[in-house]
Amino acid sequence: MTKKIKKVKGGVCAAAGFSAGATGCGIKNGEITRDDLALVSSAAPCAAAATFTTNQVKAAPVRVSAEHLRSGKIRAVVLNSGNANACTGPQGLDDARQMAAHTASALSLDAKQVLVCSTGRIGVSLPVERIAAKLPALKLTRSAGTAAAKAIMTSDTFPKEVAWEVETDAGKFRVGGMAKGAGMIDPNMATMLCVVTTDAVVAAPALRKILRASVEDSFNRITIDGDMSTNDTVILLANGASGVAPDPDLFREALDLVTKALARMIVEDGEGVSRFVEVEVRGAASRSDARKASEAIANSTLVKCAWAGGDPNWGRILDAVGYSGVKMKEASTDIYYDALEAVINGVAAPTPFPKLREIAARKAFRVTVDLRIGKFSHTVWTTDLTEEYVRLNLGE
Amino acid sequence: MTKKIKKVKGGVCAAAGFSAGATGCGIKNGEITRDDLALVSSAAPCAAAATFTTNQVKAAPVRVSAEHLRSGKIRAVVLNSGNANACTGPQGLDDARQMAAHTASALSLDAKQVLVCSTGRIGVSLPVERIAAKLPALKLTRSAGTAAAKAIMTSDTFPKEVAWEVETDAGKFRVGGMAKGAGMIDPNMATMLCVVTTDAVVAAPALRKILRASVEDSFNRITIDGDMSTNDTVILLANGASGVAPDPDLFREALDLVTKALARMIVEDGEGVSRFVEVEVRGAASRSDARKASEAIANSTLVKCAWAGGDPNWGRILDAVGYSGVKMKEASTDIYYDALEAVINGVAAPTPFPKLREIAARKAFRVTVDLRIGKFSHTVWTTDLTEEYVRLNLGE
Repeated sequence: MTKKIKKVKGGVCAAAGFSAGATGCGIKNGEITRDDLALVSSAAPCAAAATFTTNQVKAAPVRVSAEHLRSGKIRAVVLNSGNANACTGPQGLDDARQMAAHTASALSLDAKQVLVCSTGRIGVSLPVERIAAKLPALKLTRSAGTAAAKAIMTSDTFPKEVAWEVETDAGKFRVGGMAKGAGMIDPNMATMLCVVTTDAVVAAPALRKILRASVEDSFNRITIDGDMSTNDTVILLANGASGVAPDPDLFREALDLVTKALARMIVEDGEGVSRFVEVEVRGAASRSDARKASEAIANSTLVKCAWAGGDPNWGRILDAVGYSGVKMKEASTDIYYDALEAVINGVAAPTPFPKLREIAARKAFRVTVDLRIGKFSHTVWTTDLTEEYVRLNLGE
Repeated sequence: MTKKIKKVKGGVCAAAGFSAGATGCGIKNGEITRDDLALVSSAAPCAAAATFTTNQVKAAPVRVSAEHLRSGKIRAVVLNSGNANACTGPQGLDDARQMAAHTASALSLDAKQVLVCSTGRIGVSLPVERIAAKLPALKLTRSAGTAAAKAIMTSDTFPKEVAWEVETDAGKFRVGGMAKGAGMIDPNMATMLCVVTTDAVVAAPALRKILRASVEDSFNRITIDGDMSTNDTVILLANGASGVAPDPDLFREALDLVTKALARMIVEDGEGVSRFVEVEVRGAASRSDARKASEAIANSTLVKCAWAGGDPNWGRILDAVGYSGVKMKEASTDIYYDALEAVINGVAAPTPFPKLREIAARKAFRVTVDLRIGKFSHTVWTTDLTEEYVRLNLGE
């Protein structure tokens, strides 16, 4: 099968049949200073799939979206920033349902056809009435993808969107999406929200399976502070408007382009981040060991502080692997900064230290740890930990 | 049994029959600017016990000390700062053995009667010859406890020592110790070293059991950055010089006074620390759940940043409990700052926010999370995460 894949504009509206809108409701404190409500809508009912936070403390919109998802075909996603509607008890659930109901009524839909996402302050009731007041007049257009991506930003410094078009023998289809990042300042948590839309024809069961795998290889591989939010949500809507039913592998390939690009943007836009670091652990005894060790490195405060200082501190990396609990032998462990040997057989490699330091001072680099005892590997994307990160997260 | 317990001076030399010494060897870079070698010696052979790092990457002195410990009665502990002799391969093992051998020869002992501890730079060979040159002239006195405690400091801002005397019907015995803290600047890792001495009569098997339990309730409950060093070591020597063989519970009580005080000093002297926080999780379904949840809170970057800002951000605490993987129900979770309710039944308590903030801005406070589903609890001691911590850990 011949295929061509190219990047296109439009983000969440790139695929046929999807439109979006954004408006300001003053959700945070009553003052309308920016757009804080986004709506994504499909002209036709969509097969839908979603992955939600695995945190046991789940925000009300997560619970309500999971409920609505089970009930069938989805037509719209409504998202707000400024309030996470998390830790808000039964009142929060009611508010999330109201938010879906008001959206449904503005679009002449059933409330169950609407998914809901919130991000922002937690522990404070969502002022649904401010949202309800703005929904009826909210204009949906094919060109509002960026406006929607901006409306869901919190501490993000740029809107995150991307879209790809795939040409197959059977015709073209598109996959596009938007996301907001994993770092927040004034609100309290690191929430990741993402909506991906496609006009490909994909049935819900396949969609679920493919989304799960794609999230596993993108959003589940990024870590900035190791914390996991109560609101994390990735939604995938397929309305079939292109009439093209792609081969699952081809669809997965296109979806991965979107999810990986958005995941990478989230890391690069992490709070106070000065370096993007790809950490690969290979030669592990099991898949789970490879993951555990790479995450231990990526979440080590000391490793991340060293990177912030441009210090290729391999001792801290070896230390993190050592306490991660994975099968390893110090004497068979190698560490590389990009292609340069930092550690061979558990001891300092002959590479001159200034050469390693030159790499660790770059904006982006790769750390590879080879455990040399098995054949499994895992890669995560992470960042350094800067004084600015701390300053941004000091809270109120 | 009547007893009296009182604090005494002398640290690691408080117990009868122990003496200490300290000197400068220029271990780090050849320049002698401070004492960097400490020696603790007992006039009589000691029953000895030790706990070592559980990190799979173990420094050479840890391996050598574990070996010597198995071989019988211990007479001395030699400790150096400036070089951790970690990640140094077979050469490192040889160097650690040399360090024990030179110490033994200076004291007319067998090398196996000497335990070895190192802290400082990693990945760089230990300059044993600099140590060997100074050992023969090293004077041991009963009054050098503080000097020894100072010689093992790295980024510590004060020497850590404490001692207690217990009066029983059978006579008096003493337990004293010194420690160095869990934060380092120029060297690469967060190493905790501790030597405790006693003149009580306690057989090695009992000593091992009691030390393990006491470490579990002290050093294993502190966490500053969640990282675990390759060199962590706690040594307990009992020379029996008092002739008093205390009841095991009484000995444990005295030992706990020493280990808990030293553990607390280590936390209070953590790098760039501005607050000391006691985190208790209670009402957990199991002991391991209580531990997991309290450690997830204490190691959450976001929670610790909030504390640095004096922000009683209970949302981040609830979030950490939620992703810790323990059995919990959001709707039955309560959170307290000292005695004030912050969260009841998973939602904000009526306590005015400024009152919570007033507590979170203190030098020391307590956070209690009640999961209300079981009867297990666990307490850890931790700190905030400040910009200064990051600055101090930027590395070279």
